[in-house]
Amino acid sequence: MLYSTLLGKTKKEAPKDETSLNAQLLIRGGFVQKEMAGAYIYMPLGLKVLEKLTQIIREEIEAIEGQEVLMTTLQNPETWKKTGRWDDRVVDVWFKSKLATGADVGLANTHEEPLTELLTKYVQSYKDLPLYIFQFQNKLRNELRAKSGLLRAREFIMKDLYSFNRSEEELNAFYELAKQAYYNIFNRAGIGDSTYITFASGGAFSKFSHEYQTTCETGEDTIYLDREKRIAINKEVYFDDVIEDLGLDKNSLEEVKAIEVGNIFKLKTRFSEPLGLTYTDEDGTEKPVYMGSYGIGLGRLMATIVELCNDEKGIIWPENVAPYRFHILGLNLDDPEVKEKADNVYATLLEGSVEVLYDDRMDVSAGEKFSDADLIGIPYRVVISKKTGNQLEIKKRNEANSEILTIEEFQKLAGS
Amino acid sequence: MLYSTLLGKTKKEAPKDETSLNAQLLIRGGFVQKEMAGAYIYMPLGLKVLEKLTQIIREEIEAIEGQEVLMTTLQNPETWKKTGRWDDRVVDVWFKSKLATGADVGLANTHEEPLTELLTKYVQSYKDLPLYIFQFQNKLRNELRAKSGLLRAREFIMKDLYSFNRSEEELNAFYELAKQAYYNIFNRAGIGDSTYITFASGGAFSKFSHEYQTTCETGEDTIYLDREKRIAINKEVYFDDVIEDLGLDKNSLEEVKAIEVGNIFKLKTRFSEPLGLTYTDEDGTEKPVYMGSYGIGLGRLMATIVELCNDEKGIIWPENVAPYRFHILGLNLDDPEVKEKADNVYATLLEGSVEVLYDDRMDVSAGEKFSDADLIGIPYRVVISKKTGNQLEIKKRNEANSEILTIEEFQKLAGS
Repeated sequence: MLYSTLLGKTKKEAPKDETSLNAQLLIRGGFVQKEMAGAYIYMPLGLKVLEKLTQIIREEIEAIEGQEVLMTTLQNPETWKKTGRWDDRVVDVWFKSKLATGADVGLANTHEEPLTELLTKYVQSYKDLPLYIFQFQNKLRNELRAKSGLLRAREFIMKDLYSFNRSEEELNAFYELAKQAYYNIFNRAGIGDSTYITFASGGAFSKFSHEYQTTCETGEDTIYLDREKRIAINKEVYFDDVIEDLGLDKNSLEEVKAIEVGNIFKLKTRFSEPLGLTYTDEDGTEKPVYMGSYGIGLGRLMATIVELCNDEKGIIWPENVAPYRFHILGLNLDDPEVKEKADNVYATLLEGSVEVLYDDRMDVSAGEKFSDADLIGIPYRVVISKKTGNQLEIKKRNEANSEILTIEEFQKLAGS
Repeated sequence: MLYSTLLGKTKKEAPKDETSLNAQLLIRGGFVQKEMAGAYIYMPLGLKVLEKLTQIIREEIEAIEGQEVLMTTLQNPETWKKTGRWDDRVVDVWFKSKLATGADVGLANTHEEPLTELLTKYVQSYKDLPLYIFQFQNKLRNELRAKSGLLRAREFIMKDLYSFNRSEEELNAFYELAKQAYYNIFNRAGIGDSTYITFASGGAFSKFSHEYQTTCETGEDTIYLDREKRIAINKEVYFDDVIEDLGLDKNSLEEVKAIEVGNIFKLKTRFSEPLGLTYTDEDGTEKPVYMGSYGIGLGRLMATIVELCNDEKGIIWPENVAPYRFHILGLNLDDPEVKEKADNVYATLLEGSVEVLYDDRMDVSAGEKFSDADLIGIPYRVVISKKTGNQLEIKKRNEANSEILTIEEFQKLAGS
């Protein structure tokens, strides 16, 4: 991509009402822009990061037999009344509207109910199970105060996976597979080292749910972490009996701030029973389906990466989720010889399908290009200038030292 | 994909209130399911078709310098008031709701206003133009009567592209490029031969807009078509002066039914002026940006393909948009030798990244597998049975005759 024509160039300032680091850096870097409090537009650079995250998650969820669907935003109140969750006193983040016919309609904030109802059309026998269904879908949540940038938005894309099993044992076995898939996802997204499985409240139906908490000074949550065992307890269930239950020692637990980047729940029969999702087992008896749900908010994940991976100059994207791998800075482009070299390197990388952003702007100083590159945070900065001649200077975003390579050496390294 | 575990197996009957052929076939085939009138869930098979269409459109729009973004569903009323389109008497398909704070909020039915406003943050100089911005985004339209299945839905994914140019001449030049991109899209989607550019009303700001109309007996629109010149006139502007203007002869025009699969408009300064999207030109004067908009509804495109490409047995997907390329039917799978052969062919195709659906069900008759395959409409049906021995039978969905190949010949053909 040519930076000169890209929609979403860097900005010196973020909007004054954005106090969170993630929104400030993402807006200044040209990744997102604000539509209103809690609703962010993905600009071309931000959409590239979103697609990288989506693909990582898709691969890991498909590896545990997930099948992808796409549910609707418009929601039928009758489905939600069956579980009691149409009531604003039970679910307090509904956006509701009216059909032109005058009937009520909901805008999706989650999808347990409609997916459970959908499955009643397809599940009759034990042979129809298990099923693991996921989607990447927009959720609308009417938060009273949207805050913390993309960490707590009113509109966000979520990967939500739901498991449908024949028994609690089967649910438990899949739940362990999902845990491993979640570790893989956070590892591949570059935040695995700082992300810990955390015991949290299980609500009315399970003793615990599990959160994935990424330790970060700016986090809203407080967790008690055993770093060695890589297990944490959320403050909400930090009680002596829980600590003992989990075989942890209070003296090894460290109080730290963290951001919840994922959560997984055993729903058991909470939704299948009121919605009539049952199956006929091998012995001819009718049984309820055992369910689990497994969520990751993609904007929140992106924001967490930014909160964790930055310095005073800007973002430092982990390689797997960066919008591009290389950021070529062409300096002294008014010199036709330099311009030709930089253009050629860019063209060669493109031909080799290497992901590359090329700052080809003519009317911008070297200093501005350097600081834009640091703000945007692409893993490898490549400088081509009058000074570099037939060579070029390559530097990793998170390292201080640069290296001089010939253009041929670089092209070989880049795999083009 | 193993058909035995797929969510969304075929159904004998569509819901009684679905009178359109597209919804009947897509629901019976397991491609979509109905959430409510005008809102359809994409099941795994349907999502595969949607992704194929998305990728074709993305490639063609990127080829004319389109940059992809993702706007929000939540809409700020203030933006829409500036163009007068917040008013329900002007736009009669709004879904509106309230923020928890009590303020009004809109749910997006289109994106001219928010995108134009977004661009005011990035466009100042003639150097910032042109820009061609597109997205694949969910639209919510509060139609009084949702009808015709996926052809006129209340919720649907649209590819909307908007062009931003310095002058009317530049807009006109891009408009011609977009026309060619649209031809390419419909050709690749398999309906190019039946799709005609059609002159339609341009509203208040242009003489004409252009629709892409696919001729089809079940179409809602009436067009007057010159088959030789591949040009049509929509009934709404079928007047003597228009016919003359376009250099057409009334005697060569044939009245036919058609489905609108795309439309393109010159918006000129309709949105840039009220929203203040201007730029400073080379001569220092401030000028309004010239805009165009270019839409394709993806569900409608899928539905049009189904309305056009079917026979009494089911869907006949064009190869480029089919959910899978091959549909292996394993018959006599209770014979371990046959099962091993079929399993091996499937595994070999998977290893070669060939798109394949494998009907591995044990408890289903050969007749049922054949009729399911015809209903689902995958281009190549591959039968492996006791009778076929070390060979297999391959048949194209739209041809009567089958061919016998050795397993090796088939694997070579499939590229695995």
